[in-house]
Amino acid sequence: MATSLQNELSACCAPLVSEAISAADAIALAARFKALGDPTRVRLLSMVAAHDGAEACVCDLTEPVGLSQPTVSHHLKILVDAGLLSRTKRGIWSYYAVVPGSLEGLAATLAAGAPAGS
Amino acid sequence: MATSLQNELSACCAPLVSEAISAADAIALAARFKALGDPTRVRLLSMVAAHDGAEACVCDLTEPVGLSQPTVSHHLKILVDAGLLSRTKRGIWSYYAVVPGSLEGLAATLAAGAPAGS
Repeated sequence: MATSLQNELSACCAPLVSEAISAADAIALAARFKALGDPTRVRLLSMVAAHDGAEACVCDLTEPVGLSQPTVSHHLKILVDAGLLSRTKRGIWSYYAVVPGSLEGLAATLAAGAPAGS
Repeated sequence: MATSLQNELSACCAPLVSEAISAADAIALAARFKALGDPTRVRLLSMVAAHDGAEACVCDLTEPVGLSQPTVSHHLKILVDAGLLSRTKRGIWSYYAVVPGSLEGLAATLAAGAPAGS
């Protein structure tokens, strides 16, 4: 599932700066940026990415951000829905990992002249 | 002004993925992502970036997005406030340009292991 998501993200979108992007690409990109448009979600994504193996249990994330587990799970779900994190359930806990290529894909879209998905 | 803004953007923020970023950096980053979290603003930024000289008159942008000039100016103001575009008034028109380094700075923050502001 992670691989198909990655392919999907690599396919979208053309670099933002070399030519005006299509309305459809703009909707897909804006949805991803919107998911990152919240300080708690930026911190959670950063914490997951910096964690050993780029994967973290929701139980490791609640204390650092100082929010309840349901609130943290809500923010994590938004990042999963945006294709930036994946979720795996093991026992009673959910583990979150950065979708490989998703952040690099967004970065390539923003950077001048950088090939998307490379 | 563009240069001081650029320095400010280069200074913020550490790469998202190499270590968990601070709460203050997360607020600054999220504000920039939030500005990009709207399809019209993604299209406007892309159109300005792809325009000759990476600068465009607001009068060139209204028709392609199919919105009124006040609405387009409102969206452009949000991108200016986020430090992604600069605005110059010449005669009766405002011209918008991509702040040099701003998109590359965001890209470096997202990309794994990439040095920020390089």
